[in-house]
Amino acid sequence: MAAQPRTLEQRKHDTLVRLGKDLDAWVTTASDTGVPHLVPLSFLWDGGTLTFATGPTSVTGRNLRARPTVRMAIGPTRDVVLVNGTVEAFSANTVPAELADAFAAKLWEARNGGTRWSYYQVTPQRILAWREENELPGRELMRDGRWLV
Amino acid sequence: MAAQPRTLEQRKHDTLVRLGKDLDAWVTTASDTGVPHLVPLSFLWDGGTLTFATGPTSVTGRNLRARPTVRMAIGPTRDVVLVNGTVEAFSANTVPAELADAFAAKLWEARNGGTRWSYYQVTPQRILAWREENELPGRELMRDGRWLV
Repeated sequence: MAAQPRTLEQRKHDTLVRLGKDLDAWVTTASDTGVPHLVPLSFLWDGGTLTFATGPTSVTGRNLRARPTVRMAIGPTRDVVLVNGTVEAFSANTVPAELADAFAAKLWEARNGGTRWSYYQVTPQRILAWREENELPGRELMRDGRWLV
Repeated sequence: MAAQPRTLEQRKHDTLVRLGKDLDAWVTTASDTGVPHLVPLSFLWDGGTLTFATGPTSVTGRNLRARPTVRMAIGPTRDVVLVNGTVEAFSANTVPAELADAFAAKLWEARNGGTRWSYYQVTPQRILAWREENELPGRELMRDGRWLV
């Protein structure tokens, strides 16, 4: 039997903990002809945005350069945080140093090496969080870029 | 340090075990204007296809009725099975009895009750499976609907 639904405040707290501690997210994009794409990618949370990196042949990167909108899931299927966001792309030359430094500290140094990585910084517009079906009501924590709690 | 990469035969074996035992998948669709969507949904594997169900207000359902193509992920981010497939939709009236019976045995009886569920049966066209980065080569297990091993 599922636990009692969490309050919005508790869900926001749990969401921020997960964003700060988790390594990987599911990243969903679509091609300009509407073909859905999904891959797991490691990400950095800097307190306000999520950043991941892909190599030059990545379908995710190609989709995001054509259409800079993403939906990401963090956590397992029974403790999910879903983030819809707008995306800004950076190369190793254009990425802000502070962002790339924080990315390297958590994940890897993507400014050098053989792969020409691109960075994608996601600004959340909408965030949902739920565990079991009884948490579907009240799952919206952020709308239009603003926390509701 | 990552384990040695699995053989294709081992990956196919592990993939079939996961398809048979796992409850939930990440289901990715796109709207007809290319907005990516992603939700966790429980699924049934019947040995050849995956079936999930959604209610009448589901964005996933609406997307699939407009564009019957899906990308699904099963497993955690470090032991992933990715399935691209084509989708056939059924109502409670049109769903084959054998499929709905098997669905009910694993998940829930979606042919009755207050919610008008729709079933979506996914025929895999492409399947990829990997754990860590060293398994990215050789991740393709099925292409054009045929197992490569």
